[in-house]
Amino acid sequence: MPPAHPFDDDKLHEECGVFGVIGVTDAANFVALGLHALQHRGQEAGGIVSHDPESGFNSARRFGYVRDNFTKQSLMETLPGSLAIGHVRYSTAGSKGATQIRDVQPFFGEFSMGGAAIAHNGNITNADALRRELIERGSIFQSSSDSECIIHLMARSLQRKVPERMMDALRRVEGAFSIVAMTRTKLIGVRDPLGVRPLVIGRLGEDGWILSSETCALDIIGAEYIREVEPGEMVVIEHGKLNSMRPFVPQQSRFCIFEHVYFSRPDSILGGRSVYETRRQIGVELAREAPVDADLVCPVPDSGTPAAIGYAHESGIPYGMGIIRNQYMGRTFIEPTEQIRNMGVRLKLNVNRALIRGKRVILVDDSVVRGTTSRKIKEMILDAGAAEVHFRIASPPTAWPCFYGVDTPQRDKLLAATMSEDEMRDYLQVDSLRFISLDGLYRAVGEAEGRNPKCPQYCDACFSGEYPIEPADMIEKGFEMKAAE
Amino acid sequence: MPPAHPFDDDKLHEECGVFGVIGVTDAANFVALGLHALQHRGQEAGGIVSHDPESGFNSARRFGYVRDNFTKQSLMETLPGSLAIGHVRYSTAGSKGATQIRDVQPFFGEFSMGGAAIAHNGNITNADALRRELIERGSIFQSSSDSECIIHLMARSLQRKVPERMMDALRRVEGAFSIVAMTRTKLIGVRDPLGVRPLVIGRLGEDGWILSSETCALDIIGAEYIREVEPGEMVVIEHGKLNSMRPFVPQQSRFCIFEHVYFSRPDSILGGRSVYETRRQIGVELAREAPVDADLVCPVPDSGTPAAIGYAHESGIPYGMGIIRNQYMGRTFIEPTEQIRNMGVRLKLNVNRALIRGKRVILVDDSVVRGTTSRKIKEMILDAGAAEVHFRIASPPTAWPCFYGVDTPQRDKLLAATMSEDEMRDYLQVDSLRFISLDGLYRAVGEAEGRNPKCPQYCDACFSGEYPIEPADMIEKGFEMKAAE
Amino acid sequence: MPPAHPFDDDKLHEECGVFGVIGVTDAANFVALGLHALQHRGQEAGGIVSHDPESGFNSARRFGYVRDNFTKQSLMETLPGSLAIGHVRYSTAGSKGATQIRDVQPFFGEFSMGGAAIAHNGNITNADALRRELIERGSIFQSSSDSECIIHLMARSLQRKVPERMMDALRRVEGAFSIVAMTRTKLIGVRDPLGVRPLVIGRLGEDGWILSSETCALDIIGAEYIREVEPGEMVVIEHGKLNSMRPFVPQQSRFCIFEHVYFSRPDSILGGRSVYETRRQIGVELAREAPVDADLVCPVPDSGTPAAIGYAHESGIPYGMGIIRNQYMGRTFIEPTEQIRNMGVRLKLNVNRALIRGKRVILVDDSVVRGTTSRKIKEMILDAGAAEVHFRIASPPTAWPCFYGVDTPQRDKLLAATMSEDEMRDYLQVDSLRFISLDGLYRAVGEAEGRNPKCPQYCDACFSGEYPIEPADMIEKGFEMKAAE
Amino acid sequence: MPPAHPFDDDKLHEECGVFGVIGVTDAANFVALGLHALQHRGQEAGGIVSHDPESGFNSARRFGYVRDNFTKQSLMETLPGSLAIGHVRYSTAGSKGATQIRDVQPFFGEFSMGGAAIAHNGNITNADALRRELIERGSIFQSSSDSECIIHLMARSLQRKVPERMMDALRRVEGAFSIVAMTRTKLIGVRDPLGVRPLVIGRLGEDGWILSSETCALDIIGAEYIREVEPGEMVVIEHGKLNSMRPFVPQQSRFCIFEHVYFSRPDSILGGRSVYETRRQIGVELAREAPVDADLVCPVPDSGTPAAIGYAHESGIPYGMGIIRNQYMGRTFIEPTEQIRNMGVRLKLNVNRALIRGKRVILVDDSVVRGTTSRKIKEMILDAGAAEVHFRIASPPTAWPCFYGVDTPQRDKLLAATMSEDEMRDYLQVDSLRFISLDGLYRAVGEAEGRNPKCPQYCDACFSGEYPIEPADMIEKGFEMKAAE
Repeated sequence: MPPAHPFDDDKLHEECGVFGVIGVTDAANFVALGLHALQHRGQEAGGIVSHDPESGFNSARRFGYVRDNFTKQSLMETLPGSLAIGHVRYSTAGSKGATQIRDVQPFFGEFSMGGAAIAHNGNITNADALRRELIERGSIFQSSSDSECIIHLMARSLQRKVPERMMDALRRVEGAFSIVAMTRTKLIGVRDPLGVRPLVIGRLGEDGWILSSETCALDIIGAEYIREVEPGEMVVIEHGKLNSMRPFVPQQSRFCIFEHVYFSRPDSILGGRSVYETRRQIGVELAREAPVDADLVCPVPDSGTPAAIGYAHESGIPYGMGIIRNQYMGRTFIEPTEQIRNMGVRLKLNVNRALIRGKRVILVDDSVVRGTTSRKIKEMILDAGAAEVHFRIASPPTAWPCFYGVDTPQRDKLLAATMSEDEMRDYLQVDSLRFISLDGLYRAVGEAEGRNPKCPQYCDACFSGEYPIEPADMIEKGFEMKAAE
Repeated sequence: MPPAHPFDDDKLHEECGVFGVIGVTDAANFVALGLHALQHRGQEAGGIVSHDPESGFNSARRFGYVRDNFTKQSLMETLPGSLAIGHVRYSTAGSKGATQIRDVQPFFGEFSMGGAAIAHNGNITNADALRRELIERGSIFQSSSDSECIIHLMARSLQRKVPERMMDALRRVEGAFSIVAMTRTKLIGVRDPLGVRPLVIGRLGEDGWILSSETCALDIIGAEYIREVEPGEMVVIEHGKLNSMRPFVPQQSRFCIFEHVYFSRPDSILGGRSVYETRRQIGVELAREAPVDADLVCPVPDSGTPAAIGYAHESGIPYGMGIIRNQYMGRTFIEPTEQIRNMGVRLKLNVNRALIRGKRVILVDDSVVRGTTSRKIKEMILDAGAAEVHFRIASPPTAWPCFYGVDTPQRDKLLAATMSEDEMRDYLQVDSLRFISLDGLYRAVGEAEGRNPKCPQYCDACFSGEYPIEPADMIEKGFEMKAAE
Repeated sequence: MPPAHPFDDDKLHEECGVFGVIGVTDAANFVALGLHALQHRGQEAGGIVSHDPESGFNSARRFGYVRDNFTKQSLMETLPGSLAIGHVRYSTAGSKGATQIRDVQPFFGEFSMGGAAIAHNGNITNADALRRELIERGSIFQSSSDSECIIHLMARSLQRKVPERMMDALRRVEGAFSIVAMTRTKLIGVRDPLGVRPLVIGRLGEDGWILSSETCALDIIGAEYIREVEPGEMVVIEHGKLNSMRPFVPQQSRFCIFEHVYFSRPDSILGGRSVYETRRQIGVELAREAPVDADLVCPVPDSGTPAAIGYAHESGIPYGMGIIRNQYMGRTFIEPTEQIRNMGVRLKLNVNRALIRGKRVILVDDSVVRGTTSRKIKEMILDAGAAEVHFRIASPPTAWPCFYGVDTPQRDKLLAATMSEDEMRDYLQVDSLRFISLDGLYRAVGEAEGRNPKCPQYCDACFSGEYPIEPADMIEKGFEMKAAE
Repeated sequence: MPPAHPFDDDKLHEECGVFGVIGVTDAANFVALGLHALQHRGQEAGGIVSHDPESGFNSARRFGYVRDNFTKQSLMETLPGSLAIGHVRYSTAGSKGATQIRDVQPFFGEFSMGGAAIAHNGNITNADALRRELIERGSIFQSSSDSECIIHLMARSLQRKVPERMMDALRRVEGAFSIVAMTRTKLIGVRDPLGVRPLVIGRLGEDGWILSSETCALDIIGAEYIREVEPGEMVVIEHGKLNSMRPFVPQQSRFCIFEHVYFSRPDSILGGRSVYETRRQIGVELAREAPVDADLVCPVPDSGTPAAIGYAHESGIPYGMGIIRNQYMGRTFIEPTEQIRNMGVRLKLNVNRALIRGKRVILVDDSVVRGTTSRKIKEMILDAGAAEVHFRIASPPTAWPCFYGVDTPQRDKLLAATMSEDEMRDYLQVDSLRFISLDGLYRAVGEAEGRNPKCPQYCDACFSGEYPIEPADMIEKGFEMKAAE
């Protein structure tokens, strides 16, 4: 699939969002609403599995937005029951070519003592090796998704009950993953031992429990936020009760710091902190670390907005909407004309020429990946008559690919992998370019002392090259880790 | 068609946007881009007519977004030629029930000396009477659109040439209309004598000329903004030359002031003024007229944003994103489940709870129509723990329907038609509610002295009830004008 | 549109079928059934207009089979009322290129005293001239269909009532046409003065009246066949009563003899005669005129079957299914692969090799147009091991195009226009080839004395070149009539 | 899925057709053509898998006709390679509810030494037990199809090569099945030990080999018929060579006699006999066994036609088309109106009233299943004025369900399960009703001595209740076999 819009080839992409509900009437409707609120985590496709004592497991998987598929009466009626899980996906991991509908999660497997459906956000770093082993033993794979490895491991487990089967399976699995799964009567949530990817618990009414990638999806259904599933924890919810288990050896957590920078919605709460407030605070730190004399602080919409508000507030320079986003840019174009293809960023953004003309403009963006979009935006701003263009980036230089469920370009496509900050400034031909420091970012997320280099509080591999989980499949494919210093 | 999203039944709607190009290769591609930039003026359907010496007139009309239809190679190849016009429409005027594809503009008619296609933005206030008369004489109507009246009048004109036929036709027509039309060789633009609806002229390269509802659509194709078509002017562009004609008796202009408030995109230029700057200035005026002690100025996204920035700047109260908009709310739901239908505004907006909690919040919105959305937003803000809620509205109370091409509810559905400002505050159950004054609005659009009550500089009938053009058809249907004071 | 199946470029095509009902509940449902029974008269598209006092005129037009469109509850509910007319069309007459949905009948026009919908089967031979004249006067055409001329003539009539307007219009119209039309309260049927195309009257229950192209469509709804609309007659049915009018100067009738040969369904009754029996009798006549010593009489399915049965019976040679038709060949292929395109006739037919091998085979076909299919069938039969192949054709050589509503190739594409019977036999490389004589055909349709050359009882222009109605538009376009002898 | 047309609930249905090709360019195109020729064996859905060294295995599965899906250039381009297999299916065996696209064959599985795709025609009578056992061992099923059992058995085989794995799997499988399978380099065909279902071998050009359910699909691609795959034989074709293996214990064959009566196309060759000739001969036998004085022999189209021709020829009573079939009745109606639903058989058939009136009519049909259609046809014939109606049925009474890949109603729905021939005659209210005797049928298929009761030459379980393979799954579900006599 081509990128969803002109920016998309110049952003990192969260692969997935997961959501599960138990103990409510028409659970699938709640899952649909939750997935709609998590749509920013994956726009390519979505799926829901529900269970109802009468009709058993039912599932629907569709390409496209949740709102275009999982709102229709006729479809939702095929997903009855008080227990359901769902998934939205971005395209990456999986087969070489186009995603097939069979690759869309959740996956379902029937076992000798019942069945289970499973969906995950993240990446299993030894999935290739596991798959080879399972095929050797006679398992038949129907998809290219990592989730299917877990289902096959569960099917072959010698345990009888599904939670025990899952623990068996998880002990073979390496990587970063937040799992939502279900049996006929249980809703199950798991986070990997480092807790790289998010997963939260909510409650609705007397008996309803929710698992969700982010808190914003609790808000949409009016659920109460209880707590996060802890790193390495497995929760099993049944008959209105939650049981907590610990299938893994305990480790210090390493939550993905990029969730704070870009992936999560600003109205979500991560680790007890408002994402919006963290981003605003990044802007404040940036204004302190990298001040510049200018007339206007202008966000690159929409992800740069909170940091721009923080930067403007701290610097005292007026905040203004110098770039206007077209509200009607949605999904991919199908077979567009050459001319449309060439319009690129103009289809999505327009410069507010009257505001920009003659001004020294500070553009605040969340990150620089390939740098292609930054160049185009800079050109649009200068064409509109800006006197100066200063880029301020709300994350450190992205110099390493992520192997934990985020779609990143190969290392040689990352601008920061081959250029210093000054070289990037020259490449982008802007008057100045500054990234927030890694310590500044850690301060903005609440670590007053900054990053602990001995034992970093977060996973920041995309900035530092320090991978907390060995990317086994990728190393086998030839990826070279950063040399130990 | 049901409203496009939860807000849509509580906004005024511009019916249409028009765009035309002459003198460029593959003109229809430019029209598609222009219409994409004008999509905010009408999301229901769009159409393009092009002319090519070899294949003659070709047309395509589609329901849905421009980007979903008029980007496909296969469709655009059917619209060859260096001359094309297009239209996007919102649903209103026309037949009682659902819009049929035959109601989608542009309309085409073949005359004895050639043919013409025509699209308009606005409303012909004597269309019903004209239609009756034409049918009596033997014309056969295929649509319920006003544009078809003009085509039939042109077909019956005793003049031979199309521009003369059009002038003949226009002399029979009353109302507010900006027309873009084309013959085999000419691009024609017309604004009604009062110039109620916008229409601008642009140039592209040596020979290319553009007509567009707004300047933002010139930007997307890289065209240069030349000037507005003047009220009562008819421009005929052929062989790279523009001729200006004056078919109407001259009158003082009365441009629609609501274009400044809401309809136009903030990056457009209206009457030489930046729409963004005007809206920011409305916020400044509001802060002066209606100050209040509070902790946070928060826009109702996205239309309230510029005024909120102005209000925050003038008042010194911090600006923050207290309400987060879901980027993936697009078009109408098709047959949604009951539960989805009931979610209403939550599907589109979520409160940034961490930011709002405990704060005294000033909510800046562009207008209040029925008041239904305002109530829901107030409830969301209070549920999230706001200490106080103060509404500041960037337009005066909307108390009268528009008959000039804007879709407004019947008068008794307008909150301001039956309530005073205090009654509205009590109805909405907010701590305070203030609208900008009519004079304040006029100041914000650049009339330092405010509104000239003897001879208002703008059409403000929706606020004042003073209709500059008699709505003949509506009066026949029983509408009662405001009594002269 | 490419041909619907391999044979289609080698047959004459009836353009249309018409059907109308008044005085029954849910009339549109009956029209749908009737059109399904008339589908052989036109497979490209169909349309239905109904009238209901509450919702007025409603219409639906669709490409494709009646059964795929006009059976759906959701569509049929939009066509309420006790009065409806419908139409199925084949593609020909009309615009150069692809048919547009706006070209699909029935057409509807609103007049000053009401409205009318109209559908016709046939061709208006002065349509081009009428259209030019109407455009000159200011009428705007929306389609390329002949029916629209009649509607515009009616709209301009000085008469007040629809039947009188229609008589006014018909007096300007030349050609071969069977019309079914409706007002809000009347069902109207008309046949041209020569009665070239068929139209019959049926009754259903107490108050129901039906007009239909063929009697087979009366059977499907259980209606009783009453009589034919007579040549030059106009019937107006209202309040359960039928009124007969005579708008034209009386002439001797000239019914299309090809309806007996091929167009009509074998289970229909034409002019009081069973079509099946006529075709069987053609086979009997052929066996008498052109006997041959052989082992097997084999129809080219399905149109040659009745004549083959007659031939076998008369000759005493066994009848057998030597060619098997694939039941699943339906409509056109959309963008087929090269390989599929090249398969041609094999996709539709297969030879029953075990039956054919070593036999002297008489193949009975209904007609030879271009001869392309006959060649392919002959090859298939020989490949399967037939000892001899003898063609017997149930119509005389088709040497002239039809201008009365039948789609025929240009004259130079007709095999019989340039070759004698012997030359055709050599061209087809068969052991013998014989067509029934024109007199034999007249005998088979019941004219014991054969054709009356002074005043032929039927229109047989496609065989004789004697056109009973001057094809004015075609002559203007350069068609040369046969020189008078 | 509702029945495809009014008759369909009153016929037995062959579930499937299979077709495979190796050694030709663009093999999938040939498979598409072959499946088109086999469409009568299954209309619900079709699938093709191809293999190409570069892109590996590719597959496409679609609901609907082959001709509507597998003719498009765009789809066929996704199926490259010189080796491909395909399948058409009717709906039966499988999950309780609607067929899902994942249930559509061929199935594909990846093994440790490669992969294989498989499609079958028939039924595995111990599939339920096998499935339970495989799930117990950890296999995960993705479909409800029997073919998937074979793939899982193959995946778990300890053999390394695919043919050996398949032999391993087949030894666990009971039932009636003709299999077409492929690896990356081999085309494989298998028939069960009794050879209940057909499978033939063909050649095309130098290197091309074909496997097909029937010979008619060889004809369409111009391939030469070589021989049948023998009962219990497994053929493996690679590098232009065919190897024959015998994985099963040899048994006397029991080919399905109903293939001769109804399932196969009349232009196919079964066991060296022309199906058409066999059916004609059944008519001859019927005329001898059950003569009656009458005026007309009339087939129930289309399946009764060859037997009617035979009956007419033997009896000397004229043959005629008393019932005309609508050519445009295709697939299922989607949500039809009540009125359409009630039309039933009239949508498909019409009586040729002029031919039938006053006649004593012999109706020849292929079989009587529930008897519902026979009643309707009898009524139509009498309504049309027939003097007498005599049914002659070209098969013995169908009194037992088939469990070998044919969709039959439950036993209590079979008219012959509860009524004698005389009772059926009274139930149908016809003047006479006679079925061919079982011995007569055996004579018609070439067994001059009739049926050998000790060791029947064919599977005739649907007539005799003698099941040559124990229907294990069905017995477990409660089916009661006929008591041994």
